[in-house]
Amino acid sequence: MNENTGTLITIITEAPLEHTITRDIERLGAHGFTITDARGKGKRGLRDAGWDASSNIRIEVLCSSDIAEKIARRMKQRYYMNYAMVVYRQEVSVSRPEEF
Amino acid sequence: MNENTGTLITIITEAPLEHTITRDIERLGAHGFTITDARGKGKRGLRDAGWDASSNIRIEVLCSSDIAEKIARRMKQRYYMNYAMVVYRQEVSVSRPEEF
Amino acid sequence: MNENTGTLITIITEAPLEHTITRDIERLGAHGFTITDARGKGKRGLRDAGWDASSNIRIEVLCSSDIAEKIARRMKQRYYMNYAMVVYRQEVSVSRPEEF
Repeated sequence: MNENTGTLITIITEAPLEHTITRDIERLGAHGFTITDARGKGKRGLRDAGWDASSNIRIEVLCSSDIAEKIARRMKQRYYMNYAMVVYRQEVSVSRPEEF
Repeated sequence: MNENTGTLITIITEAPLEHTITRDIERLGAHGFTITDARGKGKRGLRDAGWDASSNIRIEVLCSSDIAEKIARRMKQRYYMNYAMVVYRQEVSVSRPEEF
Repeated sequence: MNENTGTLITIITEAPLEHTITRDIERLGAHGFTITDARGKGKRGLRDAGWDASSNIRIEVLCSSDIAEKIARRMKQRYYMNYAMVVYRQEVSVSRPEEF
């Protein structure tokens, strides 16, 4: 089966940021995203030393490594300072619909 | 700790396909699956050039690479043409209950 | 962008274990966790040969490989015998907030 490698970037952050972040993601060239509601516990922003249990979302984007890099950079610039946010990336094998 | 490598295959697709797909997965030899409700945005099927925000599910199956390959192939054959679907695979380290 | 490698450990298990397991995770030194509600089907515990469709949770922890190893070990010791549980680990690239 035809396969190619893609990058899966996952952003776990505060629920109220959903709209702003998905707009960022579309503008940076991603072709789609998936959101699941989550709850979590962690440090809230760099300014806050405390722990906080909160309503989170988990945003996943499957894209090229270039776009994933741009998304990660944007998240860092705009949100890391003030919001609870974790961003990580993985290489995955994607079944390409184009090869159908 | 005893470990082995497994394949995690993730299928993100339209919610109404849940029953059909999980039946496919069981028939292809997987020992279980996990489903989370999601929402997303992306191209809906190969025939549709537009974007669509929709009710999605995220199905994860931890299995051998062989079974993952069969599942990916089946998804492509049966659903890619007409439904919104993304399928990707990753290698993961699995803690084996059998070694307990 | 500054990056480092982290381990993402995912625990899929029965919903009533949430509180006990997240306490384990904090005690073992993780800095946070994310939980999503899920449903699934699989073998329920080592003592049970049957299949069971149940209310599950999906717990994700992004941490060092050492802490992930400790968490995996603890899960095995305390829960594998009697509960439905799958634990797997992946290496991921993490965008470090510390480098901001």
